[in-house]
Amino acid sequence: MPFFIKGGFNMTQVTMLSASQISHLLDMPSVIDAVADAYKEKANHPATLWPMVYEQLGGEADMDIRSGVLASKHVFGNKLLAWFGENAKRGLPELNGLVNLYNSDTGEPAAVLNATALTVFRTGAAGAVASRFLANPDATTLLVVGTGSQAPYQIMAQLCVLPKVTQVLLANPRDAKKAQAAAAQMPMTLEKLFSQTIRATNSVVAGLIDHRLSEVEFTGVTDLPATVQRSRVIVTATPSTKPLIQADWVQPGTHLDAIGADMEGKQELDAKLFQGAQAYTDDVPQASEVGEIQNPIKAGVIKPEQVAEIGNSLLDPTLGRHDANAITIFDSTGIALQDLAAANLAFVRAKEQGVGTQVDL
Amino acid sequence: MPFFIKGGFNMTQVTMLSASQISHLLDMPSVIDAVADAYKEKANHPATLWPMVYEQLGGEADMDIRSGVLASKHVFGNKLLAWFGENAKRGLPELNGLVNLYNSDTGEPAAVLNATALTVFRTGAAGAVASRFLANPDATTLLVVGTGSQAPYQIMAQLCVLPKVTQVLLANPRDAKKAQAAAAQMPMTLEKLFSQTIRATNSVVAGLIDHRLSEVEFTGVTDLPATVQRSRVIVTATPSTKPLIQADWVQPGTHLDAIGADMEGKQELDAKLFQGAQAYTDDVPQASEVGEIQNPIKAGVIKPEQVAEIGNSLLDPTLGRHDANAITIFDSTGIALQDLAAANLAFVRAKEQGVGTQVDL
Repeated sequence: MPFFIKGGFNMTQVTMLSASQISHLLDMPSVIDAVADAYKEKANHPATLWPMVYEQLGGEADMDIRSGVLASKHVFGNKLLAWFGENAKRGLPELNGLVNLYNSDTGEPAAVLNATALTVFRTGAAGAVASRFLANPDATTLLVVGTGSQAPYQIMAQLCVLPKVTQVLLANPRDAKKAQAAAAQMPMTLEKLFSQTIRATNSVVAGLIDHRLSEVEFTGVTDLPATVQRSRVIVTATPSTKPLIQADWVQPGTHLDAIGADMEGKQELDAKLFQGAQAYTDDVPQASEVGEIQNPIKAGVIKPEQVAEIGNSLLDPTLGRHDANAITIFDSTGIALQDLAAANLAFVRAKEQGVGTQVDL
Repeated sequence: MPFFIKGGFNMTQVTMLSASQISHLLDMPSVIDAVADAYKEKANHPATLWPMVYEQLGGEADMDIRSGVLASKHVFGNKLLAWFGENAKRGLPELNGLVNLYNSDTGEPAAVLNATALTVFRTGAAGAVASRFLANPDATTLLVVGTGSQAPYQIMAQLCVLPKVTQVLLANPRDAKKAQAAAAQMPMTLEKLFSQTIRATNSVVAGLIDHRLSEVEFTGVTDLPATVQRSRVIVTATPSTKPLIQADWVQPGTHLDAIGADMEGKQELDAKLFQGAQAYTDDVPQASEVGEIQNPIKAGVIKPEQVAEIGNSLLDPTLGRHDANAITIFDSTGIALQDLAAANLAFVRAKEQGVGTQVDL
């Protein structure tokens, strides 16, 4: 790449989007479709995901840079997300970062977005893309293990794609009491995060979300083995490093979205659960190192080549659930194309609605 | 890295700095010192430079992401620079990109800066850091091969560190006439880029630069072999893929800064010139693949372990030029720490001077 500047310096107008603006621009149904499209595009153009840079920043901090090109939307870019474990003590958020979106026809920067707000949306959407494709459509009971900030995003996304779910069960493996408190607050949290935010610009979607939420009951649970047994869709979204769900608790026909594992040493599911299950992930090489499937691979229960990439599978309906009694597992580790898809959706809407701060750079 | 958001979304104030603002904030003497310090810091903390991501974006476009942490300044971050070869035809700059600067104590984003404006400054400074350390201090004649946009930055930086240079010779290996035009315009260009810009905030440095420029004569040359023979400091800053300077033209005691090569296949110097020369670079593994030293390494003239890293050498004065007749060569490929150093300097001054656009992200 030459550094010679023909045409002088650029002075490009860049759109800046804050966490709050992103929350008002994105609705979960659209993000789910955008993430599904991004997975499919990865399958069609395998070169579009670039190597991840992951680095420690001292003992209680790390950061990663994910990058790639989403050719269908004419954008490329990168997300840097930094985790600082000591921040909560200081009253600061643990996660910080930016997404930079560029025009893939000219290389010009287009937008700089708050990465945290995008990440929670696209991570919620990831689980729902898999559940829509793999879960038994008659499922009425959803179990979400983990009551952190990702929980409402997972729940909202699952409710969008599982129309018969009327029971949402919440479990907190470290503190059962927290599950009950989270369940009590969840209707208000969901209404605030996903309906109030978009009512002004998309009253139809806001109305559908309000209707959907009115059909659902939220319950905090303490008996995890019994709850796993009666749940046909299970989402795990915790920072756990030990299996939370034992293989013999899980009934035939269950679908699981394992969201939490994204580093070496993370684990939410018993490795034995993968024995005979249909396993899917977003990126097999990455997930084999840092995702949930690292554990059954290390234990010799499965090999990486037995895990399907969700994008390939979405392109061919015969690659979904084999029969109603199969156990299906989706291991979500997070890829740049999800971030770019969500960022581009927010950016396109920002332009339409005149939202965001314009800065000449 | 957990994605759980304790403390809620961040809403951090980020400083946006445009190309024009950066040009007014940075003065070349300060950037030279900042780049020298960054090189030394790399030597003291080798883990601070992270893997580069380099990707093609179609036939006539590519991009790279460089990242790292500059612990002494409490910043980390990344630069994405995209080159689109067809842009000139469209009236757009070939190079575009952004630098994202983060606080390494908290992970919060601090600034987003135009990458092109930073890159020309830090690349000019790189050559000067090497010349200050390696060139014969009595050198009176500087040859710059290449009359692209990088030329004024190289010249200004060299003039800051080589106080006895009074003759600047300009060569354009593809079009000799352009060298004469470039030489005629150079005094005005340098005054505009490096003195006018900072006069309002740093009149002393602006005055020193004006004085230095008044001592120098600029001449366009056509006879490259003869000019190389009479120049004791030579800077090559071209996109060449073939040797421009033959080994037998170069006289004992000459110092060369090879700036252009930053990709596989790039070459400005005859590989034989490295035979018996003292060779330095910014990052040995990176330069062995994409820098000027890739060529003598491939040709078997030198081995990577014979090339010194400039940061290590700067820390130990005995690792400079062995004697007045040695030929010394610095191969500059560009590392993230230079970008972070220049970005941090611009950011700190922007805060002091109240410059830049503040955006809550």
